[in-house]
Amino acid sequence: MKLIDGKLLAQTIKKELAEEVAAIKVAGGKTPHLAAVLVGEDAASQVYVRNKVRSCEQVGFTSTLIKKEADVSETALLQIVKDLNGDADIDGFIVQLPLPAHIEEEKITLAIDPKKDVDGFHPINLGRMAQGLPCYLPATPFGIMCMLERYQIETNGKHAVVIGRSNIVGTPMSILLSRKAKIGNCTVTLTHSRTKDLAAEARRADILIVAIGRAEFVTADMVKQGAVVVDVGMNRVDDPTAKRGYRLTGDVRFDEVAPKCSFITPVPGGVGPMTVTSLLLNTLKASKGVVY
Amino acid sequence: MKLIDGKLLAQTIKKELAEEVAAIKVAGGKTPHLAAVLVGEDAASQVYVRNKVRSCEQVGFTSTLIKKEADVSETALLQIVKDLNGDADIDGFIVQLPLPAHIEEEKITLAIDPKKDVDGFHPINLGRMAQGLPCYLPATPFGIMCMLERYQIETNGKHAVVIGRSNIVGTPMSILLSRKAKIGNCTVTLTHSRTKDLAAEARRADILIVAIGRAEFVTADMVKQGAVVVDVGMNRVDDPTAKRGYRLTGDVRFDEVAPKCSFITPVPGGVGPMTVTSLLLNTLKASKGVVY
Repeated sequence: MKLIDGKLLAQTIKKELAEEVAAIKVAGGKTPHLAAVLVGEDAASQVYVRNKVRSCEQVGFTSTLIKKEADVSETALLQIVKDLNGDADIDGFIVQLPLPAHIEEEKITLAIDPKKDVDGFHPINLGRMAQGLPCYLPATPFGIMCMLERYQIETNGKHAVVIGRSNIVGTPMSILLSRKAKIGNCTVTLTHSRTKDLAAEARRADILIVAIGRAEFVTADMVKQGAVVVDVGMNRVDDPTAKRGYRLTGDVRFDEVAPKCSFITPVPGGVGPMTVTSLLLNTLKASKGVVY
Repeated sequence: MKLIDGKLLAQTIKKELAEEVAAIKVAGGKTPHLAAVLVGEDAASQVYVRNKVRSCEQVGFTSTLIKKEADVSETALLQIVKDLNGDADIDGFIVQLPLPAHIEEEKITLAIDPKKDVDGFHPINLGRMAQGLPCYLPATPFGIMCMLERYQIETNGKHAVVIGRSNIVGTPMSILLSRKAKIGNCTVTLTHSRTKDLAAEARRADILIVAIGRAEFVTADMVKQGAVVVDVGMNRVDDPTAKRGYRLTGDVRFDEVAPKCSFITPVPGGVGPMTVTSLLLNTLKASKGVVY
């Protein structure tokens, strides 16, 4: 069993990015600029956004953080999006989700100029991805594709099973793995809450992507010997022995599944760190104008 | 075994459409208007476009046919698209594919206003479909969804296998069947030329969608007893005994597969007639402004 070390890989990619950005600056090119919009006081969102801004600094990007109170109006937020769309110095931006209940997330996502949609959430980027056109890949699937590539995991002709059909992870992941591409050409089965014998489907996977959001959902009996397991989950489980009263766990019961795998991602330190890297890679692409 | 009679169903839907259009006219509403652009002399394309225009007339739509010589420039064709985008009377339009080699199809598809893209080929419509947002569904998958609905075929929790990953049939079909929707909630496996044991995958299907473009590719041993089989293929096979020297056949060896099926579509008279109906349904939606 080999561990896919997302933390280390993210550091490696960030180092490569930092070198490229330094070279761009030396050559008098434009410094990539990412803006992040944070609404309200959601604790997790604050951590995520802080992480993204800090990562920008690490690789030499310019970053702008726009913070708004939880009671900001939808109209005001749409105006912020419009301003960012029109700001020539900003290459890409994200609006951190979730948003307060009085704001329609879909309306915000659709208002973002697809050319600056470095989160890859706009339907046009998803559609272009499905059609194999240049696009911004959504962060989590992009991070997973990088992992598969860098760990030289063969995907061609393999059977991939994706558990979970969310718009930002499961669905795009299933599409990506089926594309005619170097990392792709999988036979892909997309499973979800309505799947009848999910364990049986999972057992058929050469590559198992788990993004169902249920702590330790995948057990050893659901995994084929030698499978590659990618755990997208990040769940808080009560644990009175832990300092904070909880521990973080993935969607996979790591201790019993890991011995059966050829490769597996840990939680934390697996997929998580790679999502920020994806955002940086998308922003660099935006800055270079290579997508649109 | 029950035959899914696409020809009859298309007639039924056209009759319903004709009634709705008549009522719209009586109420003083706008008559739906579809334009079709045909470039060159490709025989099949001429038949398809003629069919579409005639179908518009049958249901009371206004139709406009724009014919251009095969040597029309890309710039000139883009101007036609631009004019149609801006023409307030035209609710939707299509540019019949394939186009001559000197014209980049992708450029034309992307130039069509997504609001008038009643073929559902623009990536934003595909992305919206994947995200479960209102959109124009691509014609063939839309037609198949109509068939499943009208024949009251249960999809919920079923295992669907799609053979072929094209942008306009296999891929959107696999996404649609996996969505959380009345016709949907399938566990979906998308297979293609790189799939290792395609026959074994196909045999697992409760619902088998075949869109690989190879005459009589699916044989009886690839189909589970009681399966629903939808044949998207339309292949010309040499046949000296036939009047034209060829006969039309699907991707399924109908004679031997049909006895095993609960439902099956014939070729011709199955999926084919439904694609035109889909185009009409999309055009009506465009006219009513219910998508965008």
